[in-house]
Amino acid sequence: MHTIRLNLPQQAYDIAIAPGGIAKLGELMSHLHLGKQVLLVSNPTVFQHYGENVIASLENAGFDVNSYNLPDGEQYKTLASIEKLYNIALENHLERAATMVALGGGVIGDMTGFAAATWLRGINFVQVPTTLLSMVDAAIGGKTGVNHPQGKNLIGAFHQPKLVLIDPQVLQTLPEREFRAGMAEVIKYGVIRDAELFAMMEQCDRLDQFQYLSKNLLQEILVRSCQAKADVVSKDEKEAGLRAILNYGHTIGHAVESLTGYRIVNHGEAVAIGMVAAGQLAVNLGLWEQAAQDRQLALIQKTGLPTQLPTEIEINAIVDALQTDKKVKAGKVRFILPTKIGVVTITDQVPSEQIHQVLQQM
Amino acid sequence: MHTIRLNLPQQAYDIAIAPGGIAKLGELMSHLHLGKQVLLVSNPTVFQHYGENVIASLENAGFDVNSYNLPDGEQYKTLASIEKLYNIALENHLERAATMVALGGGVIGDMTGFAAATWLRGINFVQVPTTLLSMVDAAIGGKTGVNHPQGKNLIGAFHQPKLVLIDPQVLQTLPEREFRAGMAEVIKYGVIRDAELFAMMEQCDRLDQFQYLSKNLLQEILVRSCQAKADVVSKDEKEAGLRAILNYGHTIGHAVESLTGYRIVNHGEAVAIGMVAAGQLAVNLGLWEQAAQDRQLALIQKTGLPTQLPTEIEINAIVDALQTDKKVKAGKVRFILPTKIGVVTITDQVPSEQIHQVLQQM
Ligand SMILES: NC(=O)c1ccc[n+]([C@@H]2O[C@H](COP(=O)([O-])OP(=O)(O)OC[C@H]3O[C@@H](n4cnc5c(N)ncnc54)[C@H](O)[C@@H]3O)[C@@H](O)[C@H]2O)c1
Ligand SMILES: NC(=O)c1ccc[n+]([C@@H]2O[C@H](COP(=O)([O-])OP(=O)(O)OC[C@H]3O[C@@H](n4cnc5c(N)ncnc54)[C@H](O)[C@@H]3O)[C@@H](O)[C@H]2O)c1
Repeated sequence: MHTIRLNLPQQAYDIAIAPGGIAKLGELMSHLHLGKQVLLVSNPTVFQHYGENVIASLENAGFDVNSYNLPDGEQYKTLASIEKLYNIALENHLERAATMVALGGGVIGDMTGFAAATWLRGINFVQVPTTLLSMVDAAIGGKTGVNHPQGKNLIGAFHQPKLVLIDPQVLQTLPEREFRAGMAEVIKYGVIRDAELFAMMEQCDRLDQFQYLSKNLLQEILVRSCQAKADVVSKDEKEAGLRAILNYGHTIGHAVESLTGYRIVNHGEAVAIGMVAAGQLAVNLGLWEQAAQDRQLALIQKTGLPTQLPTEIEINAIVDALQTDKKVKAGKVRFILPTKIGVVTITDQVPSEQIHQVLQQM
Repeated sequence: MHTIRLNLPQQAYDIAIAPGGIAKLGELMSHLHLGKQVLLVSNPTVFQHYGENVIASLENAGFDVNSYNLPDGEQYKTLASIEKLYNIALENHLERAATMVALGGGVIGDMTGFAAATWLRGINFVQVPTTLLSMVDAAIGGKTGVNHPQGKNLIGAFHQPKLVLIDPQVLQTLPEREFRAGMAEVIKYGVIRDAELFAMMEQCDRLDQFQYLSKNLLQEILVRSCQAKADVVSKDEKEAGLRAILNYGHTIGHAVESLTGYRIVNHGEAVAIGMVAAGQLAVNLGLWEQAAQDRQLALIQKTGLPTQLPTEIEINAIVDALQTDKKVKAGKVRFILPTKIGVVTITDQVPSEQIHQVLQQM
């Protein structure tokens, strides 16, 4: 078991990465001074695989467990789902010392975290991420929330978990496309902070399916990615500055996702496209070398992720969408641009003609 | 203008008490490094009196102001109202640096604070409380939230304002019954922390209407009450321990309120009854003197607040209701009991026969 400690000004918690770790969840939680009440939140897809094991582990450690499945899918990441969780919390008389455990991908994690953040003004919360994306990204750092009908993640709160337990073995059942979506974030960490991670991945022949990764490489990927996220979050919990670098590839990525209605292109795919675009912008602006951009392109292709804009999107629509991004400050679009592999810079000084040009190149 | 600084581990803010202060709101806010966008949230009752002045003050200071009125009443303190605020926030393109300003009593303050806490995971928020209760209590300390159909304040978040601006002059239009409700909290501060405040109030002939209080006494009441609340909150932001003393009178008070459906008896009246009950419990347990309890009783009567249980409530129902209170820990009811005027103790060791007996005495 590899443990990463995430230190924040007001709290600290462990990210435990342990093959077979689900069986140890109850024991790990029993050291955290939590109350006896646990509400396990999952969805039917994930629960059918791992729900019973998680409940057994918790009950063996002496917790009183109730569980509830929300429907599976981003379209249910709504305030209405949160209201359901409130009702369940009320029915189960969850007290302040109670814990909500999220078993699932980022959708379940974000919603469970938000419900825990706002039930009785904040109860305990534990993340058991089951997608690669949620393991290396969504489950770490305390961003929780739901979508507004007119915009993703507009409603939410910062609420840190008490523990993040990552069991890589659950990735066996993850659909391939979801696995690749997570790989986009892993490549992101390589580009923004960890050139060694980037190089390790380059050495592997295929990265498009879970089965092609050795246990060792997978462990390295998880440990290094979680470490990168934890480092950034510990320096900037509330996204005052540095944390923005985690949005590498996400500026144009978000626009692409939303313009395709979050269906044709999924989040990871959009981030992949966004990274290619950001890299090209950086090349055009003279910030990084074409050779580095080529390496990024090749690595993204090796994961089977797209590197080109879907033909159905108009370039003007992307540029317009950038303006309504939640991260826009005083009308200026902020870009994270690489300067070399492992290092990025933040800028809101990209002329929109440059954006147009790069999108046309893709 | 009297200013109280509330220092918290991660932030600090001013509580400004200034007759005519509404006219200075814009200027005070202009020193706080807030963005230009302001969403003023109020209700029609309050807005008709003070809305235009507030907007003028903000606009004169250079803010871009939009305003929205939620319907007036505790029955609208719901997640549905918060959704309305989200929609307005979206329509007005509120960015992260934007500020929601609450102009109203505790209902508007709690909701505006919760919307601000959860829009884009937290934007700025300023309190302009217009009831006595919200001036001395609800607006200070960062508790925000809404009711669940089956329980008050079950949904919420801690989110501190950037400024609390108290203009005592707005109390002129406050209905008498609401004024008295606020006086219950003021008496509470006297009993739990400030014997001088208690004695000052004893010296005034009538405390049941705003008009009977001298400007000086009113100022003293506001300053001392806000100071008491700020002291307690600064020592225990998240209610880990000490902050519980602010619930003096609220344990039985909450039960009385909820059993009368929040209509026959309002919050302040319930707290008054709860303080009498807690005082009598303390006498019966040998913790404080009958003479002190008599002084408390006399002071409460001078404000025109009730000191007896409404006849329609059954004592067993109260005892049952105590068990479902949100503050119950592992099934034990926690009481705040006075030991002398200005000092209280916290205990969860009150035998339920004692509770029965005291309620029967009332
Ligand atoms: N909080 C954050 O910091 C943060 C960061 C990034 C993304 N997110 C959010 O995360 C969400 C995306 O998360 P996601 O990519 O994990 O998607 P997801 O939660 O929708 O999971 C993807 C699919 O995989 C299924 N699944 C999950 N684990 C499985 C397993 N082990 N075996 C079989 N099937 C499994 C799910 O049921 C779902 O159908 C978005 O809503 C996004 O906004 C949040
Ligand atoms: N956040 C906290 O720490 C905290 C503490 C105590 C109470 N509360 C909450 O506060 C709420 C009660 O607040 P409240 O007692 O202020 O009630 P309220 O907000 O409902 O106001 C009472 C009535 O007075 C009217 N009003 C307000 N100011 C006025 C003015 N200046 N002139 C004329 N009319 C005016 C309002 O429109 C309303 O009809 C409850 O929901 C309670 O849960 C919160």
